[in-house]
Amino acid sequence: MQKKLLLISNSTNPGESYLEWVESYIADFLHQTDIRKILFIPFAGVNLSADGVSPSYAVYTKKVQRVFDDLGYKVYPITNEEDPVKAVEDAESIMIGGGNTFFLVYMLYKWKIMDAIRQRIISGTPYIGWSAGSNVACPTLRTTNDMPIIEPESFETLNVIPFQINPHYLDTHPSDHGGETREQRILEFLAVNPLVKIVGLRERTVLRIEGEKIDLLGSRPMRYFEFGQGPREFNPGDNLDLLLH
Amino acid sequence: MQKKLLLISNSTNPGESYLEWVESYIADFLHQTDIRKILFIPFAGVNLSADGVSPSYAVYTKKVQRVFDDLGYKVYPITNEEDPVKAVEDAESIMIGGGNTFFLVYMLYKWKIMDAIRQRIISGTPYIGWSAGSNVACPTLRTTNDMPIIEPESFETLNVIPFQINPHYLDTHPSDHGGETREQRILEFLAVNPLVKIVGLRERTVLRIEGEKIDLLGSRPMRYFEFGQGPREFNPGDNLDLLLH
Repeated sequence: MQKKLLLISNSTNPGESYLEWVESYIADFLHQTDIRKILFIPFAGVNLSADGVSPSYAVYTKKVQRVFDDLGYKVYPITNEEDPVKAVEDAESIMIGGGNTFFLVYMLYKWKIMDAIRQRIISGTPYIGWSAGSNVACPTLRTTNDMPIIEPESFETLNVIPFQINPHYLDTHPSDHGGETREQRILEFLAVNPLVKIVGLRERTVLRIEGEKIDLLGSRPMRYFEFGQGPREFNPGDNLDLLLH
Repeated sequence: MQKKLLLISNSTNPGESYLEWVESYIADFLHQTDIRKILFIPFAGVNLSADGVSPSYAVYTKKVQRVFDDLGYKVYPITNEEDPVKAVEDAESIMIGGGNTFFLVYMLYKWKIMDAIRQRIISGTPYIGWSAGSNVACPTLRTTNDMPIIEPESFETLNVIPFQINPHYLDTHPSDHGGETREQRILEFLAVNPLVKIVGLRERTVLRIEGEKIDLLGSRPMRYFEFGQGPREFNPGDNLDLLLH
Protein backbone atom coordinates (compact mmCIF):
# COMPACT_ATOMS: atom_id res chain seq x y z
CA MET A 1 0.00 0.00 0.00
CA GLN A 2 1.17 3.54 -0.66
CA LYS A 3 1.08 6.42 1.80
CA LYS A 4 -1.85 8.84 1.50
CA LEU A 5 -1.61 12.16 3.33
CA LEU A 6 -3.49 15.45 3.15
CA LEU A 7 -1.46 18.08 5.03
CA ILE A 8 -3.33 21.34 5.46
CA SER A 9 -1.78 24.63 6.56
CA ASN A 10 -4.69 26.06 8.57
CA SER A 11 -8.25 25.31 9.57
CA THR A 12 -10.01 28.59 9.04
CA ASN A 13 -9.66 31.82 7.11
CA PRO A 14 -11.16 35.08 8.40
CA GLY A 15 -14.86 35.36 7.64
CA GLU A 16 -15.30 31.67 6.75
CA SER A 17 -16.71 28.77 8.74
CA TYR A 18 -14.51 26.08 10.26
CA LEU A 19 -12.54 24.10 7.63
CA GLU A 20 -14.80 25.59 4.94
CA TRP A 21 -12.06 26.45 2.46
CA VAL A 22 -10.60 22.94 2.59
CA GLU A 23 -13.80 20.85 2.41
CA SER A 24 -13.53 20.18 -1.32
CA TYR A 25 -9.92 18.98 -0.96
CA ILE A 26 -10.91 16.64 1.87
CA ALA A 27 -13.90 15.32 -0.10
CA ASP A 28 -11.70 14.70 -3.12
CA PHE A 29 -8.99 13.04 -1.01
CA LEU A 30 -11.42 10.61 0.64
CA HIS A 31 -13.64 10.12 -2.43
CA GLN A 32 -11.52 7.43 -4.11
CA THR A 33 -11.45 5.33 -0.93
CA ASP A 34 -14.16 3.21 0.73
CA ILE A 35 -13.63 5.00 4.03
CA ARG A 36 -16.71 5.85 6.11
CA LYS A 37 -15.17 6.48 9.56
CA ILE A 38 -12.29 8.68 10.70
CA LEU A 39 -10.48 8.43 14.03
CA PHE A 40 -9.96 12.00 15.30
CA ILE A 41 -7.14 13.03 17.62
CA PRO A 42 -8.03 16.37 19.28
CA PHE A 43 -5.05 16.68 21.66
CA ALA A 44 -3.67 19.89 20.14
CA GLY A 45 -6.86 21.71 21.16
CA VAL A 46 -5.78 23.33 24.39
CA ASN A 47 -8.61 25.49 25.67
CA LEU A 48 -10.39 26.19 28.87
CA SER A 49 -13.34 23.83 29.18
CA ALA A 50 -16.45 24.01 31.32
CA ASP A 51 -14.54 22.93 34.44
CA GLY A 52 -11.95 25.63 33.75
CA VAL A 53 -9.08 23.15 33.84
CA SER A 54 -9.03 20.30 31.34
CA PRO A 55 -8.79 20.86 27.59
CA SER A 56 -12.21 20.68 25.99
CA TYR A 57 -11.72 17.79 23.60
CA ALA A 58 -15.45 17.19 23.38
CA VAL A 59 -16.12 20.73 22.18
CA TYR A 60 -13.32 20.46 19.62
CA THR A 61 -14.51 17.08 18.36
CA LYS A 62 -18.09 18.35 17.91
CA LYS A 63 -16.88 21.27 15.83
CA VAL A 64 -15.02 18.89 13.53
CA GLN A 65 -17.87 16.34 13.46
CA ARG A 66 -20.30 18.96 12.15
CA VAL A 67 -18.07 19.53 9.13
CA PHE A 68 -17.59 15.83 8.37
CA ASP A 69 -21.27 14.97 8.91
CA ASP A 70 -22.00 17.25 5.94
CA LEU A 71 -19.36 15.45 3.90
CA GLY A 72 -20.86 12.05 4.78
CA TYR A 73 -18.14 10.74 7.12
CA LYS A 74 -18.37 9.67 10.75
CA VAL A 75 -15.73 11.24 13.00
CA TYR A 76 -15.09 9.59 16.39
CA PRO A 77 -12.54 10.84 18.94
CA ILE A 78 -9.72 8.79 20.41
CA THR A 79 -10.56 10.29 23.80
CA ASN A 80 -13.62 7.99 23.99
CA GLU A 81 -11.60 4.84 23.29
CA GLU A 82 -10.71 2.40 26.05
CA ASP A 83 -7.68 1.07 24.20
CA PRO A 84 -6.16 3.95 22.20
CA VAL A 85 -3.44 1.86 20.53
CA LYS A 86 -6.03 -0.66 19.32
CA ALA A 87 -8.24 2.21 18.12
CA VAL A 88 -5.34 3.44 15.98
CA GLU A 89 -4.64 -0.07 14.70
CA ASP A 90 -8.30 -0.55 13.74
CA ALA A 91 -8.83 2.92 12.19
CA GLU A 92 -9.88 3.21 8.53
CA SER A 93 -8.47 6.74 8.50
CA ILE A 94 -6.68 8.97 11.03
CA MET A 95 -7.01 12.73 11.45
CA ILE A 96 -5.14 15.13 13.76
CA GLY A 97 -6.45 18.66 14.23
CA GLY A 98 -4.56 21.88 14.87
CA GLY A 99 -3.74 23.72 18.08
CA ASN A 100 -0.58 23.58 20.19
CA THR A 101 2.03 21.25 18.69
CA PHE A 102 3.97 20.76 21.93
CA PHE A 103 0.88 19.67 23.83
CA LEU A 104 -0.13 17.39 20.94
CA VAL A 105 3.28 15.68 20.87
CA TYR A 106 3.31 15.42 24.67
CA MET A 107 -0.02 13.58 24.53
CA LEU A 108 0.88 11.34 21.56
CA TYR A 109 3.78 10.05 23.67
CA LYS A 110 1.80 9.95 26.89
CA TRP A 111 -0.94 7.85 25.24
CA LYS A 112 1.77 5.77 23.55
CA ILE A 113 0.20 6.09 20.10
CA MET A 114 3.02 7.82 18.18
CA ASP A 115 4.46 4.55 16.81
CA ALA A 116 1.06 3.04 16.09
CA ILE A 117 -0.02 6.07 14.02
CA ARG A 118 3.30 6.02 12.13
CA GLN A 119 2.88 2.32 11.30
CA ARG A 120 -0.69 2.83 10.09
CA ILE A 121 0.28 5.71 7.78
CA ILE A 122 3.20 3.74 6.36
CA SER A 123 0.78 0.85 5.74
CA GLY A 124 -1.46 3.11 3.64
CA THR A 125 -4.10 4.30 6.09
CA PRO A 126 -5.18 7.75 4.84
CA TYR A 127 -4.08 10.58 7.12
CA ILE A 128 -5.48 14.11 7.32
CA GLY A 129 -3.84 16.84 9.41
CA TRP A 130 -4.03 20.58 9.70
CA SER A 131 -1.65 23.05 11.33
CA ALA A 132 -0.14 21.09 14.28
CA GLY A 133 -1.53 17.94 12.61
CA SER A 134 0.56 18.68 9.50
CA ASN A 135 3.59 19.51 11.59
CA VAL A 136 3.65 16.13 13.34
CA ALA A 137 3.77 14.28 10.00
CA CYS A 138 7.34 15.64 9.67
CA PRO A 139 10.47 14.05 11.18
CA THR A 140 10.35 16.46 14.16
CA LEU A 141 8.30 19.35 15.59
CA ARG A 142 11.23 21.72 15.13
CA THR A 143 9.53 24.03 12.59
CA THR A 144 6.40 24.75 14.61
CA ASN A 145 5.40 28.34 15.41
CA ASP A 146 3.79 27.33 18.69
CA MET A 147 4.68 28.25 22.24
CA PRO A 148 6.43 25.36 24.07
CA ILE A 149 3.82 25.29 26.86
CA ILE A 150 4.78 21.76 27.91
CA GLU A 151 7.91 19.61 27.46
CA PRO A 152 7.19 16.53 25.34
CA GLU A 153 9.10 13.26 25.77
CA SER A 154 10.93 14.01 22.51
CA PHE A 155 10.87 16.46 19.58
CA GLU A 156 10.66 13.47 17.19
CA THR A 157 7.27 13.08 15.56
CA LEU A 158 5.62 10.75 12.99
CA ASN A 159 8.40 11.03 10.40
CA VAL A 160 6.19 9.88 7.51
CA ILE A 161 7.44 12.59 5.14
CA PRO A 162 11.15 13.39 4.64
CA PHE A 163 10.95 17.19 5.01
CA GLN A 164 9.74 19.80 7.51
CA ILE A 165 6.58 21.89 7.13
CA ASN A 166 6.23 25.36 8.64
CA PRO A 167 2.44 25.81 8.72
CA HIS A 168 0.79 29.26 8.64
CA TYR A 169 3.88 30.48 6.77
CA LEU A 170 3.81 34.26 6.95
CA ASP A 171 5.54 36.81 4.72
CA THR A 172 4.57 39.93 6.61
CA HIS A 173 5.79 41.06 10.00
CA PRO A 174 4.21 43.51 12.45
CA SER A 175 5.80 46.91 11.87
CA ASP A 176 7.84 48.55 14.63
CA HIS A 177 8.61 45.15 16.19
CA GLY A 178 12.11 43.73 16.75
CA GLY A 179 11.32 39.97 16.81
CA GLU A 180 12.51 37.75 13.95
CA THR A 181 10.51 37.34 10.75
CA ARG A 182 9.39 33.82 9.84
CA GLU A 183 12.06 33.63 7.15
CA GLN A 184 14.78 34.62 9.63
CA ARG A 185 13.62 31.86 11.98
CA ILE A 186 13.79 29.29 9.20
CA LEU A 187 17.28 30.47 8.18
CA GLU A 188 18.35 30.02 11.82
CA PHE A 189 16.90 26.52 11.67
CA LEU A 190 18.95 25.77 8.56
CA ALA A 191 22.14 27.14 10.15
CA VAL A 192 21.74 24.50 12.88
CA ASN A 193 20.18 21.77 10.67
CA PRO A 194 21.77 22.19 7.23
CA LEU A 195 20.56 18.83 5.84
CA VAL A 196 16.84 19.43 6.34
CA LYS A 197 14.43 20.69 3.65
CA ILE A 198 11.61 23.02 4.69
CA VAL A 199 8.29 23.98 3.13
CA GLY A 200 6.80 27.28 4.24
CA LEU A 201 3.12 26.32 3.80
CA ARG A 202 1.07 29.49 3.55
CA GLU A 203 -2.53 29.65 4.78
CA ARG A 204 -5.09 28.43 2.19
CA THR A 205 -2.68 25.80 0.86
CA VAL A 206 -2.41 22.01 1.19
CA LEU A 207 0.14 19.31 0.38
CA ARG A 208 -1.36 16.05 -0.95
CA ILE A 209 0.93 13.03 -0.94
CA GLU A 210 0.00 9.73 -2.55
CA GLY A 211 2.90 7.29 -2.72
CA GLU A 212 5.65 9.01 -4.70
CA LYS A 213 3.32 11.73 -5.97
CA ILE A 214 3.19 15.08 -4.17
CA ASP A 215 1.05 18.08 -5.10
CA LEU A 216 0.48 21.57 -3.79
CA LEU A 217 -3.22 22.48 -3.70
CA GLY A 218 -4.78 25.86 -3.09
CA SER A 219 -4.52 29.32 -4.55
CA ARG A 220 -1.06 30.44 -3.44
CA PRO A 221 2.56 29.35 -3.90
CA MET A 222 4.60 27.65 -1.17
CA ARG A 223 8.07 28.85 -0.17
CA TYR A 224 10.89 26.29 -0.19
CA PHE A 225 14.05 26.54 1.90
CA GLU A 226 17.27 24.56 1.61
CA PHE A 227 20.64 25.30 3.21
CA GLY A 228 22.98 27.43 1.14
CA GLN A 229 20.36 28.34 -1.48
CA GLY A 230 17.99 31.26 -1.67
CA PRO A 231 14.30 30.55 -0.91
CA ARG A 232 12.27 29.37 -3.93
CA GLU A 233 8.57 29.69 -4.74
CA PHE A 234 6.54 26.76 -6.10
CA ASN A 235 3.01 27.09 -7.46
CA PRO A 236 0.16 24.55 -7.52
CA GLY A 237 0.88 22.30 -10.51
CA ASP A 238 4.68 22.59 -10.23
CA ASN A 239 6.79 19.45 -9.91
CA LEU A 240 7.66 18.93 -6.22
CA ASP A 241 9.69 15.73 -6.54
CA LEU A 242 12.65 17.42 -4.81
CA LEU A 243 10.70 17.18 -1.54
CA LEU A 244 10.58 13.38 -1.58
CA HIS A 245 14.09 12.64 -2.93
CA MET B 1 24.08 38.97 49.02
CA GLN B 2 20.89 39.83 47.20
CA LYS B 3 20.08 38.95 43.61
CA LYS B 4 20.60 41.67 41.01
CA LEU B 5 19.03 41.18 37.58
CA LEU B 6 18.32 43.44 34.63
CA LEU B 7 15.92 41.62 32.30
CA ILE B 8 15.42 43.42 29.01
CA SER B 9 12.69 42.66 26.48
CA ASN B 10 14.58 43.39 23.26
CA SER B 11 17.94 44.62 22.00
CA THR B 12 17.00 47.04 19.28
CA ASN B 13 14.11 49.23 18.15
CA PRO B 14 13.64 50.15 14.48
CA GLY B 15 15.87 53.05 13.44
CA GLU B 16 18.10 52.87 16.52
CA SER B 17 21.56 51.40 17.01
CA TYR B 18 22.15 48.13 18.86
CA LEU B 19 21.05 48.27 22.53
CA GLU B 20 20.82 52.07 22.23
CA TRP B 21 17.49 52.48 24.00
CA VAL B 22 18.62 50.45 27.02
CA GLU B 23 22.12 51.90 27.56
CA SER B 24 21.05 54.27 30.31
CA TYR B 25 19.32 51.46 32.23
CA ILE B 26 22.44 49.28 31.95
CA ALA B 27 24.70 52.14 33.05
CA ASP B 28 22.45 52.83 36.03
CA PHE B 29 22.27 49.14 36.96
CA LEU B 30 26.05 48.69 36.94
CA HIS B 31 26.88 52.14 38.32
CA GLN B 32 26.42 51.27 41.99
CA THR B 33 28.76 48.28 41.71
CA ASP B 34 32.56 48.07 41.36
CA ILE B 35 32.22 45.84 38.30
CA ARG B 36 34.59 46.46 35.39
CA LYS B 37 34.34 43.18 33.45
CA ILE B 38 31.33 41.24 32.15
CA LEU B 39 31.33 37.61 31.01
CA PHE B 40 29.21 37.45 27.84
CA ILE B 41 27.37 34.33 26.69
CA PRO B 42 26.55 34.66 22.97
CA PHE B 43 25.06 31.18 22.35
CA ALA B 44 21.59 32.43 21.36
CA GLY B 45 23.11 34.18 18.33
CA VAL B 46 22.45 31.63 15.60
CA ASN B 47 23.62 33.08 12.30
CA LEU B 48 25.57 32.03 9.30
CA SER B 49 29.21 32.92 9.84
CA ALA B 50 32.05 33.34 7.38
CA ASP B 51 32.46 29.56 7.01
CA GLY B 52 28.73 29.25 6.30
CA VAL B 53 28.24 26.69 9.04
CA SER B 54 29.06 27.61 12.62
CA PRO B 55 27.23 30.35 14.50
CA SER B 56 29.21 33.57 14.42
CA TYR B 57 29.80 34.16 18.11
CA ALA B 58 32.77 36.42 17.39
CA VAL B 59 30.66 38.78 15.27
CA TYR B 60 27.95 38.87 17.93
CA THR B 61 30.44 39.50 20.74
CA LYS B 62 32.07 42.39 18.84
CA LYS B 63 28.70 44.05 18.32
CA VAL B 64 28.03 43.90 22.06
CA GLN B 65 31.59 44.92 22.99
CA ARG B 66 31.27 48.15 21.00
CA VAL B 67 28.29 49.19 23.14
CA PHE B 68 29.95 48.35 26.44
CA ASP B 69 33.28 49.93 25.51
CA ASP B 70 31.39 53.22 25.32
CA LEU B 71 29.89 52.56 28.75
CA GLY B 72 33.35 51.82 30.20
CA TYR B 73 33.01 48.06 30.74
CA LYS B 74 35.08 45.21 29.31
CA VAL B 75 33.01 42.42 27.75
CA TYR B 76 34.73 39.03 27.20
CA PRO B 77 33.03 36.00 25.66
CA ILE B 78 32.75 32.58 27.29
CA THR B 79 33.60 31.06 23.89
CA ASN B 80 37.26 32.09 24.43
CA GLU B 81 37.49 30.42 27.84
CA GLU B 82 39.29 27.11 28.30
CA ASP B 83 37.30 26.24 31.42
CA PRO B 84 33.78 27.67 31.00
CA VAL B 85 32.54 26.60 34.45
CA LYS B 86 35.49 28.30 36.12
CA ALA B 87 34.91 31.39 33.95
CA VAL B 88 31.36 31.57 35.30
CA GLU B 89 32.55 31.02 38.87
CA ASP B 90 35.13 33.82 38.52
CA ALA B 91 32.87 36.31 36.71
CA GLU B 92 32.18 39.74 38.27
CA SER B 93 29.01 39.95 36.18
CA ILE B 94 27.25 37.66 33.68
CA MET B 95 25.34 38.70 30.55
CA ILE B 96 23.33 36.58 28.09
CA GLY B 97 22.29 38.09 24.77
CA GLY B 98 19.20 37.44 22.67
CA GLY B 99 18.59 35.13 19.73
CA ASN B 100 17.16 31.62 19.68
CA THR B 101 16.18 30.42 23.17
CA PHE B 102 16.22 26.71 22.30
CA PHE B 103 19.75 26.88 20.93
CA LEU B 104 20.86 28.92 23.93
CA VAL B 105 19.44 26.40 26.41
CA TYR B 106 20.87 23.51 24.39
CA MET B 107 24.34 25.08 24.67
CA LEU B 108 24.04 26.04 28.38
CA TYR B 109 23.48 22.34 29.08
CA LYS B 110 26.07 21.14 26.58
CA TRP B 111 28.73 23.38 28.15
CA LYS B 112 27.47 22.36 31.62
CA ILE B 113 27.22 25.96 32.84
CA MET B 114 23.48 26.17 33.68
CA ASP B 115 23.97 25.31 37.37
CA ALA B 116 27.07 27.47 37.71
CA ILE B 117 25.29 30.54 36.34
CA ARG B 118 22.30 29.90 38.62
CA GLN B 119 24.56 29.64 41.67
CA ARG B 120 26.38 32.86 40.78
CA ILE B 121 23.15 34.83 40.35
CA ILE B 122 21.76 33.51 43.64
CA SER B 123 25.03 34.57 45.31
CA GLY B 124 24.54 38.16 44.11
CA THR B 125 26.56 38.34 40.88
CA PRO B 126 24.80 40.94 38.71
CA TYR B 127 23.07 39.44 35.67
CA ILE B 128 21.99 41.20 32.49
CA GLY B 129 19.88 39.49 29.81
CA TRP B 130 17.83 40.51 26.83
CA SER B 131 15.19 38.60 24.89
CA ALA B 132 16.33 34.94 25.12
CA GLY B 133 18.66 36.06 27.92
CA SER B 134 15.65 37.29 29.92
CA ASN B 135 13.67 34.16 29.13
CA VAL B 136 16.31 31.83 30.62
CA ALA B 137 16.20 33.65 33.96
CA CYS B 138 12.71 32.12 34.38
CA PRO B 139 11.96 28.64 35.74
CA THR B 140 11.61 27.25 32.19
CA LEU B 141 11.81 28.33 28.54
CA ARG B 142 8.11 27.57 28.07
CA THR B 143 7.06 31.16 27.28
CA THR B 144 9.54 31.81 24.49
CA ASN B 145 8.34 32.91 21.04
CA ASP B 146 11.23 31.17 19.30
CA MET B 147 11.25 28.29 16.86
CA PRO B 148 12.40 25.02 18.51
CA ILE B 149 15.27 24.55 16.05
CA ILE B 150 17.09 22.12 18.35
CA GLU B 151 16.02 19.92 21.26
CA PRO B 152 17.67 20.98 24.52
CA GLU B 153 18.44 18.53 27.33
CA SER B 154 15.57 20.04 29.31
CA PHE B 155 13.10 22.96 29.21
CA GLU B 156 14.24 23.93 32.73
CA THR B 157 16.33 27.08 32.81
CA LEU B 158 18.05 29.27 35.44
CA ASN B 159 15.01 29.56 37.71
CA VAL B 160 16.30 32.67 39.49
CA ILE B 161 12.93 34.47 39.32
CA PRO B 162 9.62 32.81 40.29
CA PHE B 163 7.59 33.81 37.21
CA GLN B 164 7.74 33.50 33.43
CA ILE B 165 8.57 36.32 31.02
CA ASN B 166 7.23 36.47 27.48
CA PRO B 167 9.69 38.85 25.80
CA HIS B 168 8.73 40.95 22.75
CA TYR B 169 5.14 40.81 24.00
CA LEU B 170 2.95 41.86 21.10
CA ASP B 171 -0.61 43.20 21.13
CA THR B 172 -1.17 43.33 17.39
CA HIS B 173 -1.56 40.43 15.00
CA PRO B 174 -1.09 40.31 11.22
CA SER B 175 -4.50 40.79 9.61
CA ASP B 176 -6.00 38.01 7.48
CA HIS B 177 -3.94 35.39 9.35
CA GLY B 178 -5.37 32.42 11.28
CA GLY B 179 -2.50 31.74 13.73
CA GLU B 180 -2.97 32.45 17.43
CA THR B 181 -2.39 35.89 18.93
CA ARG B 182 0.24 36.19 21.65
CA GLU B 183 -2.48 36.50 24.28
CA GLN B 184 -4.17 33.29 23.03
CA ARG B 185 -0.85 31.46 23.29
CA ILE B 186 -0.37 32.63 26.86
CA LEU B 187 -3.92 31.61 27.80
CA GLU B 188 -3.16 28.14 26.36
CA PHE B 189 -0.04 28.09 28.52
CA LEU B 190 -2.14 28.91 31.60
CA ALA B 191 -4.69 26.21 30.76
CA VAL B 192 -1.86 23.66 30.96
CA ASN B 193 0.15 25.41 33.72
CA PRO B 194 -2.42 27.09 35.98
CA LEU B 195 0.00 27.84 38.82
CA VAL B 196 2.48 29.91 36.82
CA LYS B 197 2.50 33.73 36.64
CA ILE B 198 3.47 35.39 33.37
CA VAL B 199 4.69 38.84 32.43
CA GLY B 200 4.15 39.93 28.83
CA LEU B 201 7.20 42.21 28.53
CA ARG B 202 6.65 44.61 25.64
CA GLU B 203 9.54 45.91 23.58
CA ARG B 204 11.20 49.01 25.10
CA THR B 205 10.63 47.74 28.64
CA VAL B 206 12.85 46.19 31.32
CA LEU B 207 12.41 44.44 34.66
CA ARG B 208 15.01 45.33 37.30
CA ILE B 209 15.22 43.04 40.31
CA GLU B 210 17.34 43.78 43.36
CA GLY B 211 16.70 41.40 46.24
CA GLU B 212 13.00 41.71 47.08
CA LYS B 213 12.55 44.88 45.03
CA ILE B 214 11.24 44.64 41.46
CA ASP B 215 10.63 47.52 39.08
CA LEU B 216 9.34 47.95 35.55
CA LEU B 217 11.47 50.41 33.56
CA GLY B 218 10.74 51.94 30.17
CA SER B 219 7.94 53.89 28.61
CA ARG B 220 5.16 51.30 28.31
CA PRO B 221 3.11 49.11 30.62
CA MET B 222 3.61 45.35 30.97
CA ARG B 223 0.75 42.86 30.69
CA TYR B 224 0.29 40.39 33.57
CA PHE B 225 -1.41 37.00 33.25
CA GLU B 226 -2.59 34.66 35.97
CA PHE B 227 -4.89 31.66 35.66
CA GLY B 228 -8.60 32.40 36.11
CA GLN B 229 -8.15 36.18 36.06
CA GLY B 230 -8.31 38.65 33.21
CA PRO B 231 -4.99 40.11 32.04
CA ARG B 232 -3.85 43.20 33.97
CA GLU B 233 -1.69 46.16 32.93
CA PHE B 234 1.07 47.52 35.17
CA ASN B 235 2.92 50.76 34.52
CA PRO B 236 6.46 51.78 35.45
CA GLY B 237 6.31 52.86 39.09
CA ASP B 238 3.51 50.43 40.01
CA ASN B 239 4.02 47.97 42.87
CA LEU B 240 4.98 44.58 41.37
CA ASP B 241 5.38 42.61 44.62
CA LEU B 242 2.83 40.06 43.38
CA LEU B 243 5.50 38.76 40.98
CA LEU B 244 7.87 37.73 43.74
CA HIS B 245 5.34 36.37 46.28
